[in-house]
Amino acid sequence: MKPKSISTNLKVCIVGAGKMGADHVERLARRIVGAEVSVVVDANISLAKKAVETIPSAAAVSNIGQALEQEEVDAVVIATPGSLHHEMLLQVQGRDLPILCEKPMTPDAASSWEIVEAEQRLGKRRIQVGFMRRFDAEYQRLRALIKSGELGELLMLHCAHRNAGSRKEFTNQMMITDAVAHEFDAIRYLTGQEIKNVQVRLGRPTRHACSGQHDPQQVLIETESGVLADVEIFVNAQFGYQVAAQAVFEKGIVNIGGDGGPYVRKAGHWGGEITPGFVERFRSAYDAEVQSWVDAARRDEVGGPTAWDGYVTAACGDAGVAAQSSGEKVEVSLQAKPSIYC
Amino acid sequence: MKPKSISTNLKVCIVGAGKMGADHVERLARRIVGAEVSVVVDANISLAKKAVETIPSAAAVSNIGQALEQEEVDAVVIATPGSLHHEMLLQVQGRDLPILCEKPMTPDAASSWEIVEAEQRLGKRRIQVGFMRRFDAEYQRLRALIKSGELGELLMLHCAHRNAGSRKEFTNQMMITDAVAHEFDAIRYLTGQEIKNVQVRLGRPTRHACSGQHDPQQVLIETESGVLADVEIFVNAQFGYQVAAQAVFEKGIVNIGGDGGPYVRKAGHWGGEITPGFVERFRSAYDAEVQSWVDAARRDEVGGPTAWDGYVTAACGDAGVAAQSSGEKVEVSLQAKPSIYC
Amino acid sequence: MKPKSISTNLKVCIVGAGKMGADHVERLARRIVGAEVSVVVDANISLAKKAVETIPSAAAVSNIGQALEQEEVDAVVIATPGSLHHEMLLQVQGRDLPILCEKPMTPDAASSWEIVEAEQRLGKRRIQVGFMRRFDAEYQRLRALIKSGELGELLMLHCAHRNAGSRKEFTNQMMITDAVAHEFDAIRYLTGQEIKNVQVRLGRPTRHACSGQHDPQQVLIETESGVLADVEIFVNAQFGYQVAAQAVFEKGIVNIGGDGGPYVRKAGHWGGEITPGFVERFRSAYDAEVQSWVDAARRDEVGGPTAWDGYVTAACGDAGVAAQSSGEKVEVSLQAKPSIYC
Amino acid sequence: MKPKSISTNLKVCIVGAGKMGADHVERLARRIVGAEVSVVVDANISLAKKAVETIPSAAAVSNIGQALEQEEVDAVVIATPGSLHHEMLLQVQGRDLPILCEKPMTPDAASSWEIVEAEQRLGKRRIQVGFMRRFDAEYQRLRALIKSGELGELLMLHCAHRNAGSRKEFTNQMMITDAVAHEFDAIRYLTGQEIKNVQVRLGRPTRHACSGQHDPQQVLIETESGVLADVEIFVNAQFGYQVAAQAVFEKGIVNIGGDGGPYVRKAGHWGGEITPGFVERFRSAYDAEVQSWVDAARRDEVGGPTAWDGYVTAACGDAGVAAQSSGEKVEVSLQAKPSIYC
Repeated sequence: MKPKSISTNLKVCIVGAGKMGADHVERLARRIVGAEVSVVVDANISLAKKAVETIPSAAAVSNIGQALEQEEVDAVVIATPGSLHHEMLLQVQGRDLPILCEKPMTPDAASSWEIVEAEQRLGKRRIQVGFMRRFDAEYQRLRALIKSGELGELLMLHCAHRNAGSRKEFTNQMMITDAVAHEFDAIRYLTGQEIKNVQVRLGRPTRHACSGQHDPQQVLIETESGVLADVEIFVNAQFGYQVAAQAVFEKGIVNIGGDGGPYVRKAGHWGGEITPGFVERFRSAYDAEVQSWVDAARRDEVGGPTAWDGYVTAACGDAGVAAQSSGEKVEVSLQAKPSIYC
Repeated sequence: MKPKSISTNLKVCIVGAGKMGADHVERLARRIVGAEVSVVVDANISLAKKAVETIPSAAAVSNIGQALEQEEVDAVVIATPGSLHHEMLLQVQGRDLPILCEKPMTPDAASSWEIVEAEQRLGKRRIQVGFMRRFDAEYQRLRALIKSGELGELLMLHCAHRNAGSRKEFTNQMMITDAVAHEFDAIRYLTGQEIKNVQVRLGRPTRHACSGQHDPQQVLIETESGVLADVEIFVNAQFGYQVAAQAVFEKGIVNIGGDGGPYVRKAGHWGGEITPGFVERFRSAYDAEVQSWVDAARRDEVGGPTAWDGYVTAACGDAGVAAQSSGEKVEVSLQAKPSIYC
Repeated sequence: MKPKSISTNLKVCIVGAGKMGADHVERLARRIVGAEVSVVVDANISLAKKAVETIPSAAAVSNIGQALEQEEVDAVVIATPGSLHHEMLLQVQGRDLPILCEKPMTPDAASSWEIVEAEQRLGKRRIQVGFMRRFDAEYQRLRALIKSGELGELLMLHCAHRNAGSRKEFTNQMMITDAVAHEFDAIRYLTGQEIKNVQVRLGRPTRHACSGQHDPQQVLIETESGVLADVEIFVNAQFGYQVAAQAVFEKGIVNIGGDGGPYVRKAGHWGGEITPGFVERFRSAYDAEVQSWVDAARRDEVGGPTAWDGYVTAACGDAGVAAQSSGEKVEVSLQAKPSIYC
Repeated sequence: MKPKSISTNLKVCIVGAGKMGADHVERLARRIVGAEVSVVVDANISLAKKAVETIPSAAAVSNIGQALEQEEVDAVVIATPGSLHHEMLLQVQGRDLPILCEKPMTPDAASSWEIVEAEQRLGKRRIQVGFMRRFDAEYQRLRALIKSGELGELLMLHCAHRNAGSRKEFTNQMMITDAVAHEFDAIRYLTGQEIKNVQVRLGRPTRHACSGQHDPQQVLIETESGVLADVEIFVNAQFGYQVAAQAVFEKGIVNIGGDGGPYVRKAGHWGGEITPGFVERFRSAYDAEVQSWVDAARRDEVGGPTAWDGYVTAACGDAGVAAQSSGEKVEVSLQAKPSIYC
């Protein structure tokens, strides 16, 4: 792909027309400057057709090969379930196109590493992974506060990741690889450090979990410099959605992800509404993320977390899964970092 | 202007390259889908040039006539000081272009009415006035709550509009016509009612006001159905920026515009940062507003408050200014509403 | 009355055994050091008897004359309805006893002035009026802040006084003389100034008010130096109880009576004070603990955690200390629980 | 000791006149009904004397034997450092008196078990341990909520115990045995379960700790039914004092010890409880008011707002009532202030 001139829109192929994919179609078609949707791919062709219903210029096809050969495609968004990312990435990587791949890049370190190796053969960064918290204003402020040293050194992070409920396809392992994956990346993003080890505590489970899920769990994480993080992952928390973190510094405590917004007093209670889900909570972050990716893509660059980041969180996931069954502390083991990410 | 096809960007002329104008240039060039900046006008040509510095396709000129004759212009944004709006609107109205005019449409009812009359002669709505609070999520939710009747009838509104400081060009009258103008529109928007009367209380003034300003003031407003509103307007409040409202219903109390965001405990205090100014507080609202306007303009329509709304708030302003000097309650008097606004 | 020695309790006569009176009986009998209830007076003798049911040393009589002649009385609390205060005060004033009179002292200025004149004839102050907000920690802090000048001069006060509902005997006038009376006193207390004038706004009323009440009302008050106060009085607010005030200073905004503690906005930050230590945080808990212990000890029992609890936490501590040095999970081992603790 | 009649005060001996002991002396002398201080014991006799300076009826001695033999003692409070509790308890247990022993009862399980065995020999409970959190309103509410089952089963507890700073005598072990001791008891109190095991995580330490302290630490605790608790103990947190807990239930999240009251997230809403009425809101103010009045009355004075204040608010009320019917601003008119009120 040659760099696009500033006045030509980036023609985007979106793979996967489920909830997340359809959301990206909408975003790129309606809210993102400098991009347009050229084709939507879904094996379930009726889903693809539904996604482009109101976008006359966009095609709907049932496989990525057809999309890449028959349509104008400057860039690709991968929004299929995580378990299908690996195969899809390998197919697209050959075309040397900018890719925005939803998290997790792949569900385990081995398959992620193959993706990294393929990029190495290309000789340049092509993939951005969908860790949108890096684009969230509160995370950005907390990170800046950590870097500033204003409250002294960061010592601990108490995190909670709560969903009202989960699908029954959401396995016990996915609580780590799909959900805590965000915290792995966020902790790395916030601290600027790699994660050293992970431990998982399984206690009293809720009766509202799907079969096979032990919910909630507590994941204990330690970074290189000894920052202790604990993550409550609770995917059937009933009350609503919340992603929160409390940072303990030498001289102060900072909370992000608390409640705010309209504030009501009625019938003996005061309070407001909880964000119902991640779409509402991170809409601006998704927009900023995609815009950053589009802008970078048009300069032939990557504008966010790279394949290396995808790989590392997958490695953390491996350690987490092992820790989950052993009850022991599991070290995260990483390959040497390729020079293109330095 | 013929309706634009969906794939062609709206070419926008922005008049006024001061703080607000430059912000609109940036927004239209970078964040708004389906629009581009074709020309920026400012009598101070160096300001206009600075605003388009990084926008190669945009021209900079020193008067509106030149812009309209020499450049491609599908639509106009007016962001000059309010006192210059009237003349500018009259010039642009003749071209039958979509106009987004910053508030106040004009500073008084008489001049606003001339604008309305000119639109009547055109026979259709062309002007949208920049009351961006209608695009703010909190205002929208409060309005929906009022309409729902969930908490019973709305009875009172306690409002506060506070700025850290004001320019010395900001006269005592402008506290009403420029600042409380927002509350006039917001109260109309929230209640769906016209304002019946306005009273102003002048008490102990701050020592931090500019010469000629009596600051703060309390504006008492009554709507058609008897909703009592009080507005604290305080333009030299030192501590920061805040626009807040507390709605008193038959069965509950709702606050909007409180504090939220990151929350810090340090050195004996807990708390967070106050929004430093209106740009930060209403950035999303501005985006939504301009996008709504662009989208409507491309369909040859108006997507927000109309010239009628501009006129009515100006009439409220007249009453407010009279009330300011008399200390008495002043009735708002309105012309009959033209049919194109019904 | 001669000054009481420090070791003799003040013998108190309480007039009125309704809600407020019974509350004062309970308070003086159980929570106030240095006083005891000697007699309770109520025209409804069964109410008086009920109030002293669990206080063997206290008598119950049906009129104040009988109480003053037949019982030991060092001081009098008047807790009848406000409309009866005037007559009662005139009767008691002749005895030269300390009097605590619930607010309002009397319902109008003429009758109040007679009480003042009677005190002048006595030549000394004998009556304390029940404006208990002067003893509320938040009001005391706000007053201290005003006096300190730390945030500049006080300019405005926005007050709200909300009850869930009111009795039907509570007339429209009593909304001023009985309820706003608290705000009249609080504004005088906070500002240290007299009130110059009062205005009342009647707008849209709630449908939940009792017959004859126009509810809510807004009372506008101006002090000698021009501080503008507005008071929302809403006695059928349904949602619960709230007494709140927002003070507008030259350099900041302070809220009291919110759902947290005092809340300040100044110089770019919002927030409140952190508790400095455990004494402040747990003072009430310590008092409750020791009172529970004293009460139990007088019954020859234990009123809280036992030696068994002390032992168990020590055992947890042992495990914790071992865990601290080993980094491993350490099981807590306990002796069998002796029967006296079951 | 025979049961005390209800009209006789419990005569209390307080052992230890340091910070905690002096606080208990003050409490028992001034705020607790039904008790008085008969003697204060401290090896440092000048501390003991200072503690009873304003309590004429109380003696000061340097050892417990002397106190028990020479003074009237119905009950004993032990407030020496925890390391001295064991020996003191053994001495006092022989006298069969009610004992309130500050926490920890003793610093380790072996010595605590000796105390329990001594009580078993007495055949009845005599010792209450100073875990005052059981008397804190927020802990009591959380416990009631857990017992009610309203939010389903309790699954996790996230706790934090933070002090601004610590003395250098406060050893690393005391972070567990003296500070986390409170959490051990609180977790048992809240859950009604014994603690099964304990683990301690040591991460990055603050630079503000005293020599020998590894601060902060995270203590992981598991109860019989599998409730997972984590406790951040941070005794040099600089910012101030905080004891907080977040309880994770099957259907909701509850916070206590925040900067407001208890805070609940459930079923799409967050918030807390509104005060139901003035009794709850102003209970402490009423107590303070009446105590102020009683204290002043015993000195033959008035301890709060005077009849003049009562008169002035009545005059404001007159103006308010007139304003209510006229809708106009009404001036408040006052008599000259009599000299006895100046």
